Amino acid sequence: MRYFEDLEAGESHDLGTVSLSADEIREFGEQYDPMPMHVDPEVTEPFGGLVASGYHTLAAVNRVVVDEFRSGVAGIAGMSIENHRWHAPVYPDEELTVTLELAERRPSAGRPGTGIVRECVTVTRDGDDGPEPVLTYDSVGLVRRRED
Amino acid sequence: MRYFEDLEAGESHDLGTVSLSADEIREFGEQYDPMPMHVDPEVTEPFGGLVASGYHTLAAVNRVVVDEFRSGVAGIAGMSIENHRWHAPVYPDEELTVTLELAERRPSAGRPGTGIVRECVTVTRDGDDGPEPVLTYDSVGLVRRRED
Repeated sequence: MRYFEDLEAGESHDLGTVSLSADEIREFGEQYDPMPMHVDPEVTEPFGGLVASGYHTLAAVNRVVVDEFRSGVAGIAGMSIENHRWHAPVYPDEELTVTLELAERRPSAGRPGTGIVRECVTVTRDGDDGPEPVLTYDSVGLVRRRED
Repeated sequence: MRYFEDLEAGESHDLGTVSLSADEIREFGEQYDPMPMHVDPEVTEPFGGLVASGYHTLAAVNRVVVDEFRSGVAGIAGMSIENHRWHAPVYPDEELTVTLELAERRPSAGRPGTGIVRECVTVTRDGDDGPEPVLTYDSVGLVRRRED
């Protein structure tokens, strides 16, 4: 397990890929975001077919972040999402590539024994001219410090 | 259906309440955020029991926003989450109260026929000294303009 002191500002990780099937998109949409473009495969406006709820993309990317990075870190809690942007609609079965940069680490002033860590997450897909951004955000959270 | 022109900056809406059961918290956690505090009812650190994934709270609140507000607006797409903060852990079966203020509306410079709308969402629970914030965020999105 890596603690606050074991993390380095600037470390960067390729976390792999994730895709959302049409069934998964509809299921999430029906439960959490039942707008027509997230639940109705016949919808034509505004995107010409089913697109994933942005909250679904965020949750599915979070799963990748947990599996490939955060499960190995002594995290305590998420504090905020910052610098967030959904850049483009996500269609069924698109392969999304997830990378993470640990952009900042600082001791918490108010909570002894903890530090604050900023994970900058970038999600892209292959476009005609190379990788295109789909979703970018920072996840800011508390991480446990080593007990001396 | 309300279009961009029908919305008023400053309009405020009580959207009702939502709660997350222990089963729902575990199910979401296993799918999207399998950290111990979101999936293991026996976990004691750091919160003394199961707490909801912040992404789950966000998605469940989004469902309330869609049902009680956004389904009546000619929305096109979400653009970003801004000013986001998870203020406190959410435990099973806590009643969360959701309010929304439409804080900003402006025509989109780049996308004719659309406007940009900022929904400020506040989620609270009852505390000893009145409502306590649990989650606050702005949802910024594109809304269709009326065709003249």
